[in-house]
Amino acid sequence: MVHVLIIGGGIAGIHVLQDLLSRRKEIENAAGGKLEITLLKKERSGWLSTCGLPFALQDIYEIETTEITKAEEFVEQGVDFRTQTEAVELNTDKKSVRLLSGEVLKYDFLVIATGRTPVLPKAVEDAMNNVKRVHTFNNEEDAEQIYASMKNAKNGFVRGRGIIALQTAVAFAKRGIKTTVLGGPPSLLPSMLDADMGDILKEYLEQNYDIRFILERKEIKALNADDEGNVRSVLIEGADGEEEIPADVVVIARGSRPNTELARSAGIETGESGGIITDKAMHVRKKGKFLRDVFALGDCVEVVDAITHKRRLAQLASAALVQAGVIADNIVSEISGEARAYSTYEPCTSPTIAAIGGMLVGSVGITSEEARRNGIKVLAGRAQKVSKARYFPGAEKINAKLLFDAHSERLLGAQIVSSAEGVAERINELNLAIKFGMTAKEICMNERCYDPSLALLKDVFVDAAENALKA
Amino acid sequence: MVHVLIIGGGIAGIHVLQDLLSRRKEIENAAGGKLEITLLKKERSGWLSTCGLPFALQDIYEIETTEITKAEEFVEQGVDFRTQTEAVELNTDKKSVRLLSGEVLKYDFLVIATGRTPVLPKAVEDAMNNVKRVHTFNNEEDAEQIYASMKNAKNGFVRGRGIIALQTAVAFAKRGIKTTVLGGPPSLLPSMLDADMGDILKEYLEQNYDIRFILERKEIKALNADDEGNVRSVLIEGADGEEEIPADVVVIARGSRPNTELARSAGIETGESGGIITDKAMHVRKKGKFLRDVFALGDCVEVVDAITHKRRLAQLASAALVQAGVIADNIVSEISGEARAYSTYEPCTSPTIAAIGGMLVGSVGITSEEARRNGIKVLAGRAQKVSKARYFPGAEKINAKLLFDAHSERLLGAQIVSSAEGVAERINELNLAIKFGMTAKEICMNERCYDPSLALLKDVFVDAAENALKA
Repeated sequence: MVHVLIIGGGIAGIHVLQDLLSRRKEIENAAGGKLEITLLKKERSGWLSTCGLPFALQDIYEIETTEITKAEEFVEQGVDFRTQTEAVELNTDKKSVRLLSGEVLKYDFLVIATGRTPVLPKAVEDAMNNVKRVHTFNNEEDAEQIYASMKNAKNGFVRGRGIIALQTAVAFAKRGIKTTVLGGPPSLLPSMLDADMGDILKEYLEQNYDIRFILERKEIKALNADDEGNVRSVLIEGADGEEEIPADVVVIARGSRPNTELARSAGIETGESGGIITDKAMHVRKKGKFLRDVFALGDCVEVVDAITHKRRLAQLASAALVQAGVIADNIVSEISGEARAYSTYEPCTSPTIAAIGGMLVGSVGITSEEARRNGIKVLAGRAQKVSKARYFPGAEKINAKLLFDAHSERLLGAQIVSSAEGVAERINELNLAIKFGMTAKEICMNERCYDPSLALLKDVFVDAAENALKA
Repeated sequence: MVHVLIIGGGIAGIHVLQDLLSRRKEIENAAGGKLEITLLKKERSGWLSTCGLPFALQDIYEIETTEITKAEEFVEQGVDFRTQTEAVELNTDKKSVRLLSGEVLKYDFLVIATGRTPVLPKAVEDAMNNVKRVHTFNNEEDAEQIYASMKNAKNGFVRGRGIIALQTAVAFAKRGIKTTVLGGPPSLLPSMLDADMGDILKEYLEQNYDIRFILERKEIKALNADDEGNVRSVLIEGADGEEEIPADVVVIARGSRPNTELARSAGIETGESGGIITDKAMHVRKKGKFLRDVFALGDCVEVVDAITHKRRLAQLASAALVQAGVIADNIVSEISGEARAYSTYEPCTSPTIAAIGGMLVGSVGITSEEARRNGIKVLAGRAQKVSKARYFPGAEKINAKLLFDAHSERLLGAQIVSSAEGVAERINELNLAIKFGMTAKEICMNERCYDPSLALLKDVFVDAAENALKA
């Protein structure tokens, strides 16, 4: 028998489970025995797409719809799938995990996929237990609570300017809730976009939705409640004083930190970013040594940035998916001894896409600010163009910005803000361009397919590359 | 003064013109004199998108709309832009071109962009001058004539099963014209798709349009006309006998050959494929030597296939666009002596996309049949999936097939047939995967961006790569 124990049932844990299930026969043949899988998760759902939750707030579908596979369905497949279950202690020497209930589980392979926890401003942390209609947005229970608070709300307040914060603000505005978004300077989605690109999104949102952006060095000082304990207003303060903003629903989506308490309590090491340190095979490290039977992945681990080579968090479902494949391969490899199965997770470029109220935003690689912080000099080129032949009906505008290494002229980063489709796919193409070190000139001379109903002969990002060379 | 003479005003010639115009200052500074450009074209239009013409037959816009820049507008920019003008003799020693009118033009740089001519079945060639409503489809005049013939037509006949043939058949069917398409076995778009993928398109077209496909080794034996000389029926024959098919409008879109008579008459060499031979800089060859002042590009030249390394035709607007950039760079480089400007056209993967009546078809690299003909053993993987999260409204089906080298497991070809968008962009991504030699495993482990409203966490082509590895 081989027992794999997975702690965490978010996208990371679930994908390890799925990958192992799809290779069950192969594993059982190699092990010469049965494959037992236990998955522990705190939430009550099975496989639920948290990335789908912000769209449920927009009434595109119901929250329940995002549950792709119910816990019972995994149980029917022979998985010991335990919801509302918490692991409280981990012992990598004894290969065991103790649950809150006191039960102790043994494992042959352990997978740590404990995810992340929202980081709260101090004043919010203090008020959170007393003031109602103030929420974080990390899982389906949060989504249900936000959805309930949105009913009859007139004023909304969102702390954060990342993807989830902006998708929440759009959901508020679509319901007629007058919304304020508080984030730092200089613009929106700073981990994905330079300020000039973020401003295109900001202008679009201001023009199309009733959203006010406060992008300044300000923080929430207090949450004021009415007699029934419901939030009534948010008091914010900065260098220029205080402002009280009316709000009947508040969402804090400012950032999050990796959940590593369980791992750290067992001596598993974390890095500067706060995430669990792993090798390329996703093995965790303890006392300077990587453990062949303990893996970690997803929002709780560090990755290596492909451009800066520094360790950082990735916190994207797409990273977790690939890491899950690596871990499944390496569990198979460890059992079978077959070298061909062995996989590695390579330095990360974080290709990212988000639909934010009718605008698509994509990004991969490094931003100008990250380049500056890392002492990398870049050539930047920007362009705006339509998505297909000018004479074709329905052409929409795409804005692209490419960043190249100033010396080698190789692509280091790409940003797109667009009302046309095809952003995710362009980001995926540019991701490969970064990985394989394409230069601006090579991008200009690269043949791309053309049909006037679908594309321009010369795409917006080719213009951006040309403009970078002229810069 | 520098005089560049361009023969041909299709996409190839026009893009050389555009690229030179956009760099006029740079060229004039380097030359220490004025840049004179003459463009000769047989047709009466300026810059016209021939790829847009099939959509005009579907009434998406008028034929005139596809003229992006009028001849007069080029004249206003100081270009000697001559429409309805034919070059009849070329002398590369005297650096001169004689026109049909007798006029002789001298050049410093010559660009040959003479395009292609439809290849007609013998019986059609004979009948073409006597029978009305029988058309080729190569330019705007053809489109105008087809459009006129479509009025009141009840039965349509299309010879060919390539992109233009199928787009024409869809235009017929959309107007209620009962349409027959005659092409060879085994299925549709054989230069782009394996038969199993071509059949997905064929079934879609049969189910959604009144189109009958005859995909057999049959050829047109005769075109029968009524008393007024209008086509009435098409007589086709094959091994199993003859069939007469009623038709009031006939389009022959079976293939085309490069227009190389002018070049050949000057001693410029053509290759096995019939196209003009060039080096990577797009210089033509004469008596075994490449001429630094004569370039050729577009449908009249040979390219080197990136997979088979054989010379073949490309005949895509996208290839011409890149070749135009290479030629403009090399004219600048030749004038300025600056090595940095020098460019090369690399072996060709022919990324191709076409919208055919609500279905998108994309392809890049080689098909199974081409692999077989070249003795390349492949691993193939196919998959069908939806375009975005299952729980999201509006998800459509995408079919993908990937071909890998059986030994190295590197990607050699990709095919997509899809009712969802994002095909062009996936083909562009897979084009880079081919260029940079990605293996099936690397494709499986490559992180791609994700948003449930836009993409699946694991794309259809990643499944296809996994299936190829299992095969």
